[in-house]
Amino acid sequence: MAEQKKMVEEITSMDVDFAKWYTDVVKKAELVDYASTKGCMIIRPYGYAIWENIQKDLDARFKALGHENVMMPMFIPESLLQKEKDHVEGFAPEVAWVTHGGQEELTERLCVRPTSETLFCEHYAHVIQSYRDLPKLYNQWCSVVRWEKTTRPFLRTTEFLWQEGHTMHETAEEAKAETEQMLNVYADFCEQALAIPVVKGRKTDKEKFAGAEATYTIEAMMHDGKALQSGTSHYFGDGFARAFGIQFMDRDNKLQYPHQTSWGMSTRIIGAIIMTHGDDNGLVLPPAVAPIQLVIVPIAAHKPGVSEKAQELRARLQNVCRVKLDDSKQSPGWKFAEYEMKGVPLRLELGPRDLENNCCVIVRRDNREKQVVQLDELETAIPALLQQVHDGLYEKALQRRHDMTYDAHTMEEMIDIAEHKPGLVRAMWCGDLACEEAIKEKAGLTSRCMPFEQEQLDDVCVCCGKPAKTMVYWGKQY
Amino acid sequence: MAEQKKMVEEITSMDVDFAKWYTDVVKKAELVDYASTKGCMIIRPYGYAIWENIQKDLDARFKALGHENVMMPMFIPESLLQKEKDHVEGFAPEVAWVTHGGQEELTERLCVRPTSETLFCEHYAHVIQSYRDLPKLYNQWCSVVRWEKTTRPFLRTTEFLWQEGHTMHETAEEAKAETEQMLNVYADFCEQALAIPVVKGRKTDKEKFAGAEATYTIEAMMHDGKALQSGTSHYFGDGFARAFGIQFMDRDNKLQYPHQTSWGMSTRIIGAIIMTHGDDNGLVLPPAVAPIQLVIVPIAAHKPGVSEKAQELRARLQNVCRVKLDDSKQSPGWKFAEYEMKGVPLRLELGPRDLENNCCVIVRRDNREKQVVQLDELETAIPALLQQVHDGLYEKALQRRHDMTYDAHTMEEMIDIAEHKPGLVRAMWCGDLACEEAIKEKAGLTSRCMPFEQEQLDDVCVCCGKPAKTMVYWGKQY
Repeated sequence: MAEQKKMVEEITSMDVDFAKWYTDVVKKAELVDYASTKGCMIIRPYGYAIWENIQKDLDARFKALGHENVMMPMFIPESLLQKEKDHVEGFAPEVAWVTHGGQEELTERLCVRPTSETLFCEHYAHVIQSYRDLPKLYNQWCSVVRWEKTTRPFLRTTEFLWQEGHTMHETAEEAKAETEQMLNVYADFCEQALAIPVVKGRKTDKEKFAGAEATYTIEAMMHDGKALQSGTSHYFGDGFARAFGIQFMDRDNKLQYPHQTSWGMSTRIIGAIIMTHGDDNGLVLPPAVAPIQLVIVPIAAHKPGVSEKAQELRARLQNVCRVKLDDSKQSPGWKFAEYEMKGVPLRLELGPRDLENNCCVIVRRDNREKQVVQLDELETAIPALLQQVHDGLYEKALQRRHDMTYDAHTMEEMIDIAEHKPGLVRAMWCGDLACEEAIKEKAGLTSRCMPFEQEQLDDVCVCCGKPAKTMVYWGKQY
Repeated sequence: MAEQKKMVEEITSMDVDFAKWYTDVVKKAELVDYASTKGCMIIRPYGYAIWENIQKDLDARFKALGHENVMMPMFIPESLLQKEKDHVEGFAPEVAWVTHGGQEELTERLCVRPTSETLFCEHYAHVIQSYRDLPKLYNQWCSVVRWEKTTRPFLRTTEFLWQEGHTMHETAEEAKAETEQMLNVYADFCEQALAIPVVKGRKTDKEKFAGAEATYTIEAMMHDGKALQSGTSHYFGDGFARAFGIQFMDRDNKLQYPHQTSWGMSTRIIGAIIMTHGDDNGLVLPPAVAPIQLVIVPIAAHKPGVSEKAQELRARLQNVCRVKLDDSKQSPGWKFAEYEMKGVPLRLELGPRDLENNCCVIVRRDNREKQVVQLDELETAIPALLQQVHDGLYEKALQRRHDMTYDAHTMEEMIDIAEHKPGLVRAMWCGDLACEEAIKEKAGLTSRCMPFEQEQLDDVCVCCGKPAKTMVYWGKQY
């Protein structure tokens, strides 16, 4: 018990210092290590296994909708990046530049891709000639680089892993439908796999992606009330197609520009998992992406039969869940703390007394509820318990978002909430950039999204009093 | 038939110009496209699907042996690259340098990783303290960059995809066993999944990896008799560990340096598949990694029942193999040529007459053998036919290697073979660098490997006449 206490004490409580709690968890749960390259992270086996589970689930969803994976180069020649004006303005200030290859200085600088619209467009210009070549539904899993001044593991790093979908369509309607469909894929994934409730909506022009006509987002609320943009889906119209000269012969034998989308989700989502579900004992992982879903901890393993039965259970349960048996020499107390830190959803304790009764104790990570389960009922009990953990996590996160979302009707209210109540603020907006900027300056809140589910809280803008156009979620962001 | 002929004619025959045949195949089978970044390739959906199948198979083999995946940064600070002397000498001349991040010039240049020994070592120095922390069995799937002057898709590109395993062990023996084990994993994979026979052996000191004590290789013979290094496994001793200050407390409480390995296989292996199995009709894919294993081509699809039955078969066979139904409006002849070009192992033809007899025709891609199969026997016939294609490809490649491998007993013989007979040459060697260089100069052959399976062809070195130490495979390389 002393050991368990020692480990638990090593994490800063989230109420004392949330940022410190976060970095403690990513280190102590062995998710990342810091590299000597400024702002880059090393994702350790346990962290990477979470990413692999995320990848596998998302990739299957993409492929079920007809998307195909490809690989684009990691370098973009400067002249290619410059082809779309808004895009280069948005990204050029934050890229890494390769100027030398081997012993020679390059005649043209190459940037390390911050995102790959320009590369996909160059390729699409080669392979799209006719409406028969459309749609093109491509996706890529890779890492990208954005030169960041201040970084935090998963949330903001110079290099990060992501997937980027890039599609081309015959019509604007089709492309818009794709943009919406992929936002729904992200939202479903967050809710069904990660137990993270999200708000779906559209970004304001100020917050949209460089070069996009419209950016859609899913926003999740973290433990501390801040918002985390968890996935985005962009509609480009035919802007890039025009800039890159991508044209196709349509069904009436006329040359047309195709309509484009892109959409991405990154390792940032691991930060969302940590900050949505974690607690003062460490990580709490949603079962669908947990590298270990159930850990078996033998109690008094030296007593006759315990160790053998634990091994037998491990072999049996491999078909039921991702199971680990920890039969190392550490004390049970140490192991309890260790796997709580690592966020393993279920712990199975098995001791001599349990053997006599042909049962075991299963403890849920999310609420520490214990229950005695008959050994021959494990095959049905464990999937049910994993589902309960998922549901419990989702409900708790939804309740928190509900409790920490406030409506503001005046700027005074808005400033007061921003100062005293961490969370999201719903307020009406006229649609003017000036008001968006004033709200940021006065209340320190940025527009998170214009949610698809609108409510008419007032008739006028919270800032200027002119007629309101939209209800907006405002918040502090990661 | 005219269409089919047209497509087939578009490929250069491999006997006329093997290099041209190769680039024709990678383009026409839609494996790659060229990017404007010099030397980089775009891997298109069909090519990437082959890589995904390779990845999935290899990754499962690695994990079954206890390896874990991680992500290291893509950048290496110059000072980190320089820590191991031989390593930096080998790689520094061929890396890409990042000198600017965002708007600023960096105080220290970063190279884009050409390989990640230095990054893994930096991390291992953080996480290895005790023998209890060993072994560390890590692997990474990523892309690396080597600044190449002349490039060819898959075979030699500035950026390429690969996996790199990096492991640390308590003892030299354990590390050596790992090096050998992983070479065997590669060899088994090539033979069992890719139907490519390989020669296992050790590289000479001249040809070994920069910084390694020993490099092991699997060498495959291409259609034109040239050798392709298809996977390598390196033993490092404790050289990097000393350079990076990685030490652990051993079982006797003494500080020791751990022993290290690394091993890699890259997208180059797709080049090996093309050049081992391909023919003048295009690609021929080994069934284990073929994105489509069986294509269904309806004949006279407008006749009653054909189209419906084809769809029914597709649905049924999805549980048996990776199946595609091409019910597009192209002619059957066009489709035959198209899927031959793409190397699909089996083609299923289904027409009105077949329907009457409740059968279909299946054609093997590798030898064009046709057979009539009863529709209700497809579930057993298809797996058996896929196995036959695999075996047929393997046997043909093995026979070719056998037919194109020659023994040389004198330098005259060696030069004569090198000039007139494409293939590998087996000859004895004294072990001196001078003779290795002389053979390269006079015969244009480099040492491919010192095979594990030795034979005493002569008692003296083929070059200098001094006592021979080893039989070596010599050849022209990709």
